[in-house]
Amino acid sequence: MSKEDAGGSRQPEGYGKLQSLLAESCDLEKAASVLGWDQRTYLPPGGAVARGEQLAALRGLVHRKKTSPELGQLLEGLRGYEESMPRDSDEASLIRVARREYELAARVPVALVEEHAQASAAGYRAWADAREAKDFAVFRPAMERLTDVVGRVVAAMGYEESPLDPLIELSEPGLTAARCEALFAELRAALVPLAAAIATKSPGDEDALVRQRFDGRKQLDCGREAVRAIGFDFERRGRVDLTIHPFTTSFSPDDVRITTRVDENDFGNCFFSLLHEAGHGIYEQGLPAHLRRTPLGRAASSGIHESQSRLWENIVGRSRGFWEFFLPRARAYFPEQLSGASVDDIYRAVNRVTPSLIRTEADEVTYNLHIMMRFELEKSLLEGKLPVSGLRDAWNEKMQSYLGILPPTDLEGVLQDVHWTRGPGGGFQGYTLGNVVAAQLFEAACAASPGLPDRFASGDFGPLFRWMRERVHACGAKHRPEELVEKATGKPLTAGPYLAYIREKYGRLYG
Amino acid sequence: MSKEDAGGSRQPEGYGKLQSLLAESCDLEKAASVLGWDQRTYLPPGGAVARGEQLAALRGLVHRKKTSPELGQLLEGLRGYEESMPRDSDEASLIRVARREYELAARVPVALVEEHAQASAAGYRAWADAREAKDFAVFRPAMERLTDVVGRVVAAMGYEESPLDPLIELSEPGLTAARCEALFAELRAALVPLAAAIATKSPGDEDALVRQRFDGRKQLDCGREAVRAIGFDFERRGRVDLTIHPFTTSFSPDDVRITTRVDENDFGNCFFSLLHEAGHGIYEQGLPAHLRRTPLGRAASSGIHESQSRLWENIVGRSRGFWEFFLPRARAYFPEQLSGASVDDIYRAVNRVTPSLIRTEADEVTYNLHIMMRFELEKSLLEGKLPVSGLRDAWNEKMQSYLGILPPTDLEGVLQDVHWTRGPGGGFQGYTLGNVVAAQLFEAACAASPGLPDRFASGDFGPLFRWMRERVHACGAKHRPEELVEKATGKPLTAGPYLAYIREKYGRLYG
Repeated sequence: MSKEDAGGSRQPEGYGKLQSLLAESCDLEKAASVLGWDQRTYLPPGGAVARGEQLAALRGLVHRKKTSPELGQLLEGLRGYEESMPRDSDEASLIRVARREYELAARVPVALVEEHAQASAAGYRAWADAREAKDFAVFRPAMERLTDVVGRVVAAMGYEESPLDPLIELSEPGLTAARCEALFAELRAALVPLAAAIATKSPGDEDALVRQRFDGRKQLDCGREAVRAIGFDFERRGRVDLTIHPFTTSFSPDDVRITTRVDENDFGNCFFSLLHEAGHGIYEQGLPAHLRRTPLGRAASSGIHESQSRLWENIVGRSRGFWEFFLPRARAYFPEQLSGASVDDIYRAVNRVTPSLIRTEADEVTYNLHIMMRFELEKSLLEGKLPVSGLRDAWNEKMQSYLGILPPTDLEGVLQDVHWTRGPGGGFQGYTLGNVVAAQLFEAACAASPGLPDRFASGDFGPLFRWMRERVHACGAKHRPEELVEKATGKPLTAGPYLAYIREKYGRLYG
Repeated sequence: MSKEDAGGSRQPEGYGKLQSLLAESCDLEKAASVLGWDQRTYLPPGGAVARGEQLAALRGLVHRKKTSPELGQLLEGLRGYEESMPRDSDEASLIRVARREYELAARVPVALVEEHAQASAAGYRAWADAREAKDFAVFRPAMERLTDVVGRVVAAMGYEESPLDPLIELSEPGLTAARCEALFAELRAALVPLAAAIATKSPGDEDALVRQRFDGRKQLDCGREAVRAIGFDFERRGRVDLTIHPFTTSFSPDDVRITTRVDENDFGNCFFSLLHEAGHGIYEQGLPAHLRRTPLGRAASSGIHESQSRLWENIVGRSRGFWEFFLPRARAYFPEQLSGASVDDIYRAVNRVTPSLIRTEADEVTYNLHIMMRFELEKSLLEGKLPVSGLRDAWNEKMQSYLGILPPTDLEGVLQDVHWTRGPGGGFQGYTLGNVVAAQLFEAACAASPGLPDRFASGDFGPLFRWMRERVHACGAKHRPEELVEKATGKPLTAGPYLAYIREKYGRLYG
């Protein structure tokens, strides 16, 4: 049996077969995501071992499906059909993307994938224990095992320049370590002097307003109101839950789970982590429904994903216009703490620039310095230039030299990110890419809809939301990240708009 | 490679292979259970369709694994080894139970299993909608589809006497519809006159004490304290969550999830549903760790499972001794409602006998009448003697004739049980079996440890807990339910102890 494709011609039989193979893989991947979500939100400590086994079984199975000879043969047989269709059609894109993923995945033996999953589960437990003990030594053996396993994974995948390249290709198709390093160098040259200049002008207590005591339950309610205002649907198509290290996961565009944490002495911790995750969540809810259960029904890359979270967290959530709209609402939850504050007060408080220990709480100017050091550390680990036993010291040295501060314990240092519970190659470059892309997309959205940012003050985020829906979310994973940026904005990916945004905003804030 | 078995002889290679095949199936089954738990606790409404697909994919896969020719050949090749080992050894039991499950499962085509999973997911959604509308008509089309699908399942499995037989064999190995009907007849003959006699003596307001207003959050805290006291570990090895229709599920003995619901106008609703589910949960936490990831690392049957929940809910939780212990504790949560109450007051209140609409809230005397009517209805459905369109009326007629009351809406009637969201053959017989077995096990535990029930008054449930751990939980699924009862108590399964318990307790309560 064959169906008609978009071009009106007949779909070959193999195409339908490909779709159903891919649908099964997607379903099983989403099932694994449900287990992962539960693992990080509600799993009782005793359940960790069995959960590791279950995830390993499921991921091993997905890997076998994604690398089955049957899939390889189908993809081979569809070359002619792919070439007969326009490159951006659903059909050609599906075959192209599925083939890229097949070729990457087929290089890693299933036993190694299972070993990685087991090591990651053990790594997560060790990391949680280490955080409790505030001691990297507790996590070290697990990290050594992970570094070894990931090393064998990249060796199996093969690479020419950097052992990070195949891992970057997985999360940012088309990018390389060298390209990232060039981008980082451009940013570093501009941001380091800027941060230094700001340091001389900062009174140091700009954020006292948001560092008062804020009741945890009210923080959640207040954050939920903000998240609803920007367009995340958690009535029928999503949830918010608590966790240690906030993340977003999705089981379909109609079931998107965001998470957050609460610090009762810091209003910004929960609030901005919610806006951030909601940005991810809005993207997931906007992915094309008709491409669900295919490799196209996903985000284009980690970096593009991050562009959406940083957009709503920073460019919108830390804008003056947003706070014109939201301050009266926040005051309703916290009259005592916020009644005396003006829009300018809170705008300054949530945009304080200062070297800080925790990446997820870093300001927009210093954030990328956190990313660069992680990227460099994991590159050194994988290249064998840094042993895991030296990771804590290397971390602390880089903190000192990039930001001029030292973590009091490993909890605020080398143990802060969940990413390394899966080993080095945590995809950190995606965060900086996200910052850069967010600014470029925002610039284009504003050009397309003049006055767009002025509407934030009245709580109207619709034009921005819709532009992203059409230009970014609706494409799913059809395009590589750099392609997508160029298609959406008409210009190649560049750090220009990001640096212009930072200079303009912080130039004004800090004179 | 071969290992040594319990008898000191060499395990054939096929045995290790069998273990790893079964471990993978168990892991994937548990993964499906995680998705099912989430479906009933936290799933946003929009996520239901995708969840149905994911569960169908996972269950279809498990079914293919459980019916793979490779497994069949392995089991065939292990016949000699099985016969060489003692019947109750882990090895012989594992091969025997795995073969029984293989033979049952292999009869159902995978497409039919997937169809059943899809129909069940749709059934759950339709049931939830129907409950909201309080109208069976909303659920009817889904139930018609389910009845059709289940009819094809039992036809594929094959049966001699009743279409219910193969479904009963799945949940109660060794039992038949005819055996259940004989047991039901014996119970009916004793319980109907007893219920009638009690009705003439009941003042009708025995439970006013527990029908006051009780804050929901405090009910949960109070229930958690009781559940902890009887021995369910939800600090490290379990959780309690809220749901519509309480259930227990387990992802390993170290990760057991119980659920409950809260009615602010009825203290008993949440409290006894928690004790009930904790009874299930204690069983799951007590299953043999060394048989985890095998078909032996499970409950012996649904009926045996229910014996554990009914034991803790009723025989313990509704005993006078329990309330001597727990009343002061309950008073600490609800001083206003309970300060004037004596142990006798609350003992009477939680043991009111009255014909009622909701099975899960029925008293010990009338409970089995609820079961019998469901059993008869689903038998008629599957035998084609009752169309689904007549189910609501048939339900109401039976309610009238067995209990003399009529549900005001379908919500309190035919829509009350979650079971039929998977179609007829909901395993209701297991509930009555559970009541009967609980009493027989309790009688044996008391005989082994004289004075055991007297210790409840001081909060000491240890002797009962340990007896169940050793005689029931530790066996896993090695024995068929009737076998297990005979091994544990030294006597064949009989309704005698249950009827004696009921007559003694309610004879005293109602003179």
